[in-house]
Amino acid sequence: MANDRLRGVAVIGAGMTRFGQFPEKSAVDHGVEATLAALKDAGLEWRDIQAAFVGSMGLGGTIGPTTLAEIGLTGLPIMNVENASASGSAAFREAYIAVGAGLHDVALALGVGKMTVGQLPRPNTIRPVGDSLPPAAVFAMRARRRMFEYGDTADHYAKVSVKNHRHGAMNPFAQFQAPVTLEEVRGARMIADPLTVLHCTPRGDGGAAAVLCSVEAARSLGVRPLITVAASAFRSELHRSPSHDAPTLTEATAREAYQQAGAGPWDMDLVQIHDAFTVEEVDYYEELGLCPRGEGARLIDEGVTEIGGRLPFSTDGGLLARGHPIGPTGLAQVWETVQQLRGTAGPRQVENARIGLCQMIGAGGVCFIHILKR
Amino acid sequence: MANDRLRGVAVIGAGMTRFGQFPEKSAVDHGVEATLAALKDAGLEWRDIQAAFVGSMGLGGTIGPTTLAEIGLTGLPIMNVENASASGSAAFREAYIAVGAGLHDVALALGVGKMTVGQLPRPNTIRPVGDSLPPAAVFAMRARRRMFEYGDTADHYAKVSVKNHRHGAMNPFAQFQAPVTLEEVRGARMIADPLTVLHCTPRGDGGAAAVLCSVEAARSLGVRPLITVAASAFRSELHRSPSHDAPTLTEATAREAYQQAGAGPWDMDLVQIHDAFTVEEVDYYEELGLCPRGEGARLIDEGVTEIGGRLPFSTDGGLLARGHPIGPTGLAQVWETVQQLRGTAGPRQVENARIGLCQMIGAGGVCFIHILKR
Repeated sequence: MANDRLRGVAVIGAGMTRFGQFPEKSAVDHGVEATLAALKDAGLEWRDIQAAFVGSMGLGGTIGPTTLAEIGLTGLPIMNVENASASGSAAFREAYIAVGAGLHDVALALGVGKMTVGQLPRPNTIRPVGDSLPPAAVFAMRARRRMFEYGDTADHYAKVSVKNHRHGAMNPFAQFQAPVTLEEVRGARMIADPLTVLHCTPRGDGGAAAVLCSVEAARSLGVRPLITVAASAFRSELHRSPSHDAPTLTEATAREAYQQAGAGPWDMDLVQIHDAFTVEEVDYYEELGLCPRGEGARLIDEGVTEIGGRLPFSTDGGLLARGHPIGPTGLAQVWETVQQLRGTAGPRQVENARIGLCQMIGAGGVCFIHILKR
Repeated sequence: MANDRLRGVAVIGAGMTRFGQFPEKSAVDHGVEATLAALKDAGLEWRDIQAAFVGSMGLGGTIGPTTLAEIGLTGLPIMNVENASASGSAAFREAYIAVGAGLHDVALALGVGKMTVGQLPRPNTIRPVGDSLPPAAVFAMRARRRMFEYGDTADHYAKVSVKNHRHGAMNPFAQFQAPVTLEEVRGARMIADPLTVLHCTPRGDGGAAAVLCSVEAARSLGVRPLITVAASAFRSELHRSPSHDAPTLTEATAREAYQQAGAGPWDMDLVQIHDAFTVEEVDYYEELGLCPRGEGARLIDEGVTEIGGRLPFSTDGGLLARGHPIGPTGLAQVWETVQQLRGTAGPRQVENARIGLCQMIGAGGVCFIHILKR
């Protein structure tokens, strides 16, 4: 099991709002909607939830209690967590640990985001990856470097966008539900060469939630299929030598996750990642151990990572098409993985999916990897 | 022990910066200084820390990794937590659970705050207690209500300020280190009648940190005296009937904490609370169970809660004199309790202190109570 110090933990419910730009809705609205959807999915009532962990960014230190007070003042502990893009994954991990430690039998992990009405943290309090450059510039440089070092072309990254938009078109909760062509990606507005706007995650709002429960309690509730947490790994940036020989953040985190799960990269049936920019997905093929450094672009050329391929990535559209409202994103990955493992993913179903990996990174240099299996 | 699901956890190091207004220092500076002080106190090096939990408010979702990267990129998991005024207590609790669950042997709980240069969350993202009234107005109304219902006088609250400033004058880390007279409190600038400015916590900056460790590991390190976490209780606002018969938030949280510790209010040797406004301290005498509702003012009249009295409150000066930079405040309470239980509190030492309680509330309606004992 995930961690031999913790008891087994199951995910018995998941819910999310459609991601998108909803100026008429507040973060609280999104949180309430996602929570009620997750409760309904779990077949539980609000009073059954014994603890809540709420991930968001820049929404203030009272967002969790303020949101959940709308559902009822049951007195449960409500912890706000924040780890930039990975805030939803952080909420999931803290809920997992609390249930795994035996403090609670049933806990809620909730993520909320409201990016469209000036709720972004002020620039002076955030240092994006790569000092003060905007993220698109950082990842454009990463793309240029890969093109120089490994012979990738801009079209390799464009194909990631085409693939993930195709996946998103099959997800009724995705922010973008229309496929795009290679020509459209190439010809879209340039943001940071070689990344056009269709290489970049959109801004959006939304909520996503999961109900976690001890395996023991889930069995007594008769939950089927039983989806358990097979790994929860979390690391921050590592000191690396100038030669870049040391493992990257995602590599180090993945090693820990695979060890906990007793499984390797090619044992996975599907993978969700932080594809805020297309080039990242190619990087993560390598950092998650699917192929040696520099060979990731081959996987996109060969269709390995599309639904129907050997190991589909970003099956719900990923950050590129499903969207990335920050707070809920990590929990949208959990939602998608739960749908796939249950076999309820509809047209985007990965055949006989039994085990899925969710990776998220966050500014400041953090990485979370969770592995769920049935 | 605290929670029979968790293994025993000890606090083996504590450190803090002096609280105050330091425009030349950043939140990162305060966090680094507090962390290094806690490590030195624990006799450990940075590489010994296996996980970190960082509490702050309004400092952004990357504050923990950004701060601790200054000490070294060891790759440890760094979780940001936020629960308004109680953010430092939240960090302490999550570290306690992670160590108690056996995920880590040694963890850091850090709180940082920077209130003096516009780092407060924007008004539109925070709902203070009592809807949109500023906190001083809310607590002034609470004072007026107590005066009407219980016959308290404004001088009862003023005496809390005199007491806590006297305590703070003995604490080299306090923001205010000068005693004040009853006349000075009465005659100070009025903020919200009957609360003058000396009834209110100041704005300030600072950092505070604690090193938590399994009792097993602490014993093998030969730590003496061994200070353990006897209770960690955390609740959110409860639905209460209009008659106010149901327990208040602090009452409900205290019940849980006392049960975990196997001890009652009068078993405590010292208590730290959220005395952001003087009237709160009198309220908490009652809510923590020292006396029936409405009789709290008697304790301040009789000197019960000053150093030298039967059960001293706010021995380091409390929020009123030690200060309240939000993020670190809950960990400053831990720091003070550790000094007292070790017998290293100097002129403010509580004789033969063996067990101490730390209570914090946070906007949004949360309460944390930790009990430490040797």
